[in-house]
Amino acid sequence: MKTLLKILVCLALVVGMFGAAYAQFSSAEKAIKYRKAVMALIGQHFGLMGAVVKGKQSYDREQFMRNAALVATFCTLPWEAFMFPGSDKGDTRLKSAAFRDKDKFMAAAHNTQTQAAKLAEVAKGGDLKAIKTQFGMVGKTCGGCHKPFRS
Amino acid sequence: MKTLLKILVCLALVVGMFGAAYAQFSSAEKAIKYRKAVMALIGQHFGLMGAVVKGKQSYDREQFMRNAALVATFCTLPWEAFMFPGSDKGDTRLKSAAFRDKDKFMAAAHNTQTQAAKLAEVAKGGDLKAIKTQFGMVGKTCGGCHKPFRS
Repeated sequence: MKTLLKILVCLALVVGMFGAAYAQFSSAEKAIKYRKAVMALIGQHFGLMGAVVKGKQSYDREQFMRNAALVATFCTLPWEAFMFPGSDKGDTRLKSAAFRDKDKFMAAAHNTQTQAAKLAEVAKGGDLKAIKTQFGMVGKTCGGCHKPFRS
Repeated sequence: MKTLLKILVCLALVVGMFGAAYAQFSSAEKAIKYRKAVMALIGQHFGLMGAVVKGKQSYDREQFMRNAALVATFCTLPWEAFMFPGSDKGDTRLKSAAFRDKDKFMAAAHNTQTQAAKLAEVAKGGDLKAIKTQFGMVGKTCGGCHKPFRS
């Protein structure tokens, strides 16, 4: 029950953060640079967890918790940068379809964020089977944006 | 006293994280990409705080706390990536002097990390004068690496 409460509080916090501070970028180039940086960090730390999930690296609870917390944090950051007007041009793979179907993009982004927050909670429990399942849930959400909106 | 305790616990945690997980990169290129991503995020979120400190943006306590917590978190991440062998070549401004004077580099990095963690604590208090002072303390540490080790 305590854990459920923690998850809910955490999710509320995360959802509260979502979409905050629009217009923090002064140009499309800066928005692109920012979101690429966030995605690179998500990739690195998600990859470190993936190596454990695939049995290529040994499981270290503290280390996994840290990576999961980092990914959950990173997943609160980049979405508004994707919606910056004109940021489908330049050094990016973002399709303009993301602007035409903003609701679908944001719903998929929100889904990733929610599942990543859950992974951070599950990781605290140290149950590797549950962790692997939730890691898979996060992985499944990536395509929600990548398939329709990344060229 | 409670605050002091919190700061100490936080610092212990941060220092504990420092330097963890060496060799998480499979190549110098990946280490460079990673640390550039982290530095870009530090720049963005430090800049958002800087705009408040300079009076260009109004002060929002929650927003400032969030940016300070993010910068403190980011400041735990990139240092080992700078020490990756051969990562002074390629798409980077890192001078090879960083490898010759690793202790100086890491001491300066540690200083940034410590001051950023303190800023995250001070930001919780909501005292803008104290925040500005501590923001300045963080800013002063940047040159510790940038001056001797960045071309």
